[in-house]
Amino acid sequence: MNESRSNLARLFAPASVAVVGASASPNKAGYQALAALRGFPGRVVAINPKADGPISGFETLPSLRAVGAPVDLVLFAVPAAACPELMREAIDCGCGGGLIVGGGFAESGPAGAELQAELGRLCASSGFRLLGPNTAGFVNKQASLTACFVPSVDRLARGPIAVVAQSAGINLTVSFLLARLGAGISQAIGLGNAVDVDAADVLDFLAAQPETKAIALHLEGVNQGRKLFETLRRVTPKKPVAVLAVGRQDVGEFARSHTGNLLGSHALCVSALRQAGAVVVDSTEDLATTAAALSLHRMAPKSAPGIGVVTAQAGAGLVMLDLLKANGVTVPELGPATLQRLSANLPPITYLKNPVDTGRPGPTFADVLTAVTEDPHIDAVICYALSEPAALLPATVLPDLARGATKPILFGTMGPRDELEPTLAALRSAGIFAAESPEQLARAAIGLVQDAAAQARLALPQPERPPPRLAVPDVPDEHSAKQLLEGMGVPAPRRRACASHEQALEAFERLQKPVVAKVLSSEVLHKTEVSGVMLNLAERAAFTAALVRLDAIPLAGERRYLIEEMAPPGLELIVGALRNPSFGPTVVVGLGGTLAEVWRLTATRLAPLTSHDAEAMLEELRITALLEGFRNAPPLDRAALLRLLVSVGDWIHHHPEIEQLELNPVRLYQRGLLALDALLIRTPPAS
Amino acid sequence: MNESRSNLARLFAPASVAVVGASASPNKAGYQALAALRGFPGRVVAINPKADGPISGFETLPSLRAVGAPVDLVLFAVPAAACPELMREAIDCGCGGGLIVGGGFAESGPAGAELQAELGRLCASSGFRLLGPNTAGFVNKQASLTACFVPSVDRLARGPIAVVAQSAGINLTVSFLLARLGAGISQAIGLGNAVDVDAADVLDFLAAQPETKAIALHLEGVNQGRKLFETLRRVTPKKPVAVLAVGRQDVGEFARSHTGNLLGSHALCVSALRQAGAVVVDSTEDLATTAAALSLHRMAPKSAPGIGVVTAQAGAGLVMLDLLKANGVTVPELGPATLQRLSANLPPITYLKNPVDTGRPGPTFADVLTAVTEDPHIDAVICYALSEPAALLPATVLPDLARGATKPILFGTMGPRDELEPTLAALRSAGIFAAESPEQLARAAIGLVQDAAAQARLALPQPERPPPRLAVPDVPDEHSAKQLLEGMGVPAPRRRACASHEQALEAFERLQKPVVAKVLSSEVLHKTEVSGVMLNLAERAAFTAALVRLDAIPLAGERRYLIEEMAPPGLELIVGALRNPSFGPTVVVGLGGTLAEVWRLTATRLAPLTSHDAEAMLEELRITALLEGFRNAPPLDRAALLRLLVSVGDWIHHHPEIEQLELNPVRLYQRGLLALDALLIRTPPAS
Repeated sequence: MNESRSNLARLFAPASVAVVGASASPNKAGYQALAALRGFPGRVVAINPKADGPISGFETLPSLRAVGAPVDLVLFAVPAAACPELMREAIDCGCGGGLIVGGGFAESGPAGAELQAELGRLCASSGFRLLGPNTAGFVNKQASLTACFVPSVDRLARGPIAVVAQSAGINLTVSFLLARLGAGISQAIGLGNAVDVDAADVLDFLAAQPETKAIALHLEGVNQGRKLFETLRRVTPKKPVAVLAVGRQDVGEFARSHTGNLLGSHALCVSALRQAGAVVVDSTEDLATTAAALSLHRMAPKSAPGIGVVTAQAGAGLVMLDLLKANGVTVPELGPATLQRLSANLPPITYLKNPVDTGRPGPTFADVLTAVTEDPHIDAVICYALSEPAALLPATVLPDLARGATKPILFGTMGPRDELEPTLAALRSAGIFAAESPEQLARAAIGLVQDAAAQARLALPQPERPPPRLAVPDVPDEHSAKQLLEGMGVPAPRRRACASHEQALEAFERLQKPVVAKVLSSEVLHKTEVSGVMLNLAERAAFTAALVRLDAIPLAGERRYLIEEMAPPGLELIVGALRNPSFGPTVVVGLGGTLAEVWRLTATRLAPLTSHDAEAMLEELRITALLEGFRNAPPLDRAALLRLLVSVGDWIHHHPEIEQLELNPVRLYQRGLLALDALLIRTPPAS
Repeated sequence: MNESRSNLARLFAPASVAVVGASASPNKAGYQALAALRGFPGRVVAINPKADGPISGFETLPSLRAVGAPVDLVLFAVPAAACPELMREAIDCGCGGGLIVGGGFAESGPAGAELQAELGRLCASSGFRLLGPNTAGFVNKQASLTACFVPSVDRLARGPIAVVAQSAGINLTVSFLLARLGAGISQAIGLGNAVDVDAADVLDFLAAQPETKAIALHLEGVNQGRKLFETLRRVTPKKPVAVLAVGRQDVGEFARSHTGNLLGSHALCVSALRQAGAVVVDSTEDLATTAAALSLHRMAPKSAPGIGVVTAQAGAGLVMLDLLKANGVTVPELGPATLQRLSANLPPITYLKNPVDTGRPGPTFADVLTAVTEDPHIDAVICYALSEPAALLPATVLPDLARGATKPILFGTMGPRDELEPTLAALRSAGIFAAESPEQLARAAIGLVQDAAAQARLALPQPERPPPRLAVPDVPDEHSAKQLLEGMGVPAPRRRACASHEQALEAFERLQKPVVAKVLSSEVLHKTEVSGVMLNLAERAAFTAALVRLDAIPLAGERRYLIEEMAPPGLELIVGALRNPSFGPTVVVGLGGTLAEVWRLTATRLAPLTSHDAEAMLEELRITALLEGFRNAPPLDRAALLRLLVSVGDWIHHHPEIEQLELNPVRLYQRGLLALDALLIRTPPAS
């Protein structure tokens, strides 16, 4: 494991590089790979068994073995079929890692998939680390290393941001958008088919690189979600990570139960990324903006940082305020001392409290900005002013001001490009984020706030509470599932499981009326779909008739009845714990009834949860008003609901034999709650 | 009226301009206004009673009267208090219009508001048109006229887009963002306080300007919503209009009833803009992108145009597809003939159907693009390729291709700025929209599609159906409101209005049990809040007890009872018709129950509605699945619901004496519907 880790560092920051399949003909990959290595200060060896002299001026040898020393990084510029054998040689020679740019692997069909699997097995058994196959490779600006990347990447400046993308097209798009923002890159890494090195591995490597101040990550689907989640939780407290996760329009992959249907995999992925401390964005543009801002202005963890808005144009201030508020950012009123300072520095104009609208900037502009920055409610300031050199020279005013401030000051402007460029360049070289629209400026602030809030959440204690160890029946049904729930401290209605009409009638006599009669069989996952639930039975005759109707449901095995007391009305919720193939155990909560299902309104987190995670789920679900007592209704037992979410999360986390536990519905009351139905599904045996 | 219209044209496209308050001292507005007029080819007169020679080289006279001929446009560069008197002089001289840059009007307090009102009265009584006060003025590139705009506006190129904004800051931000896209402006107009000339007036003027191909509009709140709506409906079929409406975070302004509470004014504004054919965007960036794309590539009206996506990088294709789908854009599979053409031109790669992923562009790239463009399912094509001059020269390939195509082809790219600039410039001068990120390209396409779909909707016949003329009682209560509904053909439960317990008991005997007993009084707007509704009364004793409880509700006037048959269960909806102070009659529909209220899920349109508008409301509400029969439930009577929405819209449209009609709830069934409750509020007498 440790060797595997150090080999990752050898791969991405090598002292020596070999190109296997080196070629002298310019349209071969083996030529281009060598050409890209021209600026690399370490040892470069061209490998070609047929060559009889240097290729492109590089030292050339017939094989990796002939090098005589283990090379850190091997670029395989050979056909797919030749890769496993050559990789074995590299492993035998003690090389650290390699990368395969070429295709012809899993993306090309079954034969390629088998080849790729073979590469994966070689890595797993040896500790050799492989990037790709089918990747554009990577650039390490710090090491002056361009490992097989596409053209024009040399034009990118060195800087504090690492870009990690599954697609080379997005990698370069984001890198050049960063360049537009004056931000250089430390690394740009393409993951390709990712048979061995995946996003999580790269994040771990980058976390230890001092030059990297922020990470921009692009994902097109996550195979090992849990690993990514755990890695992000470790990495984001050290370095901010902004993520663009493509695939909003994917529908959920789980069809086995209602909870599964509601759970879109993209929604789960985004929830998991946020829960792990990443800032999730919606576009390549926002990925660049957010990473650039975070690389310069990361704030200390804080649950709701206050943003000060200073603007020379009220219209732009309104646009920014609107966007900040739509994203839940706090724009606090300024304190009385600040207002006093502002009125001394500004003419009596319409709005001072925040946003502060200065009107056309005057000589006091710097004092205004300083006053807002020093307000105790403010954690960062954004300032927008159109280019108006006669009124304001931002490059003269801001750098001094920012140097003297203990809080981030971000700037935004717009105007003729040639007039703007020197200003933007001066600000950026002074370490000030500078945007080219009001929204870009606001989005930068939103990224800073979301990062600080996520880190504040992550910093809260994550208590270890192993739940009671409960035996899970081999073939669970509703009754045994509810017994398990009761063992966890989750109440269900009073009930009897009955094997015959006689037992059912006895239960009917003993229980409080009205009762519910349900078919009880592990064969039936969704009782309502087979008319397996008879509600509101108060009279004996109706009860008997209900049993007869339940008998009409075709069943292969044993037929039993579950007779339950009717629960009083309450707020109906769906609560589920579900083991996701990629992300592992998760908890989902949604409002009950068809509306929630039609609108797909649910909130999901990875288990185990803190009570703060559970609280965030309820906020995401926007049911705070309902819980607090909507329209004069009494407030509901929020604490009981939070406990339930945390409990089912702990429980699935500690019981790998459970694939799914679904409580649909749970009824929530002024005091406590009741699980009216329970579906428990065991994890299928590993194949 | 006609004079008022021609005066608007004199204001914005004058042959002569006078500056009242002309000054020789450079920091006075009267100096700057004159200086900005230097390039204007028409007559310019400086007005200053004390001057004894030309100011800044311009002909100078002591008064407007001294000019001897009516000037088209008068710039008032004088203190607020002097404006009314000088405007009277301008009116007396037959001047066309004016603009007031200075502040000190409604934004400054009551005295300023009265000054502003006086200006408004002068305009209304004379036909003189005033822009502002408190505006940055306007630029008319066609007329080489800069009327008092802020500095650096001269740097903007002339082109096909008119920018209209309430704020000068946004006006310039959008104009310079357009310049980044290579798009010039025909006019840039700041509305300021808009005491006379408002957005609708400007739109009407621009619709008649041949040079303007698309309009970018920024709104910060709409006072005369109905006027804007009607104007947009007239203008958008001639010229596309993109709108940024600030104020998402505003809450609704109407608090008098539930429907009012649900109806956020911003949501209403956006609905009205879309209903009138505008493309609504969310940022200054998207406003520029959308207007630029529409100025070049407006499509013919079509309800769901198909977009072809061609990409040299699969990652970028996925990003664009995701964004298009999230906005409901159709990305159709290509036909078999197209696929055949594509396979002849491309190596056997992963995806051809749409998006078409070409891999690294080869010599057949143009053929691929042509094949996709000619596919019968495709109405426009977007194409993204990273800058890679060795593989693709877009400026060589695309202009010819676009010239030969009958459908829009839009391009997007990214790379080093100096490498990109010549390509972008060449494409743009060939009339091709060129974006600098995958998302910007996709958003341009979304704008084209939304415009074409809106115009297809507007082109549908708008039938005139005056509803039955029904007498509205002076003091309506639930019973009389339901009688009115029945007159409109909207059924309500069988019921009796009763003045005494005796009458109520007789009704109880006659009606089908169970019944509902309600307090009947125009004093009670929300019966449930005073426990004024007793449900499910089947026994006489319970019924009598219910009457006694209704008697406990304190009432000043007459106490009556409404006894109704209980309606069977069904899908509960809220349907309202509401007269909005700005937008006039509107129709709103939402799902019943607290959830819809908590989540504020409603859809609104201005009345009268077409059935297509009503249909669009149900789609916006995302209840199609419910109406079609969710989870094996029978389908519901969608047609009856659509008729109801159209009916209440027609009705409020033709009955100005009605301020509000709220049906909460309406129950929808497999056949028909029932209005279970009805609240009718008369329009208060005009003050």
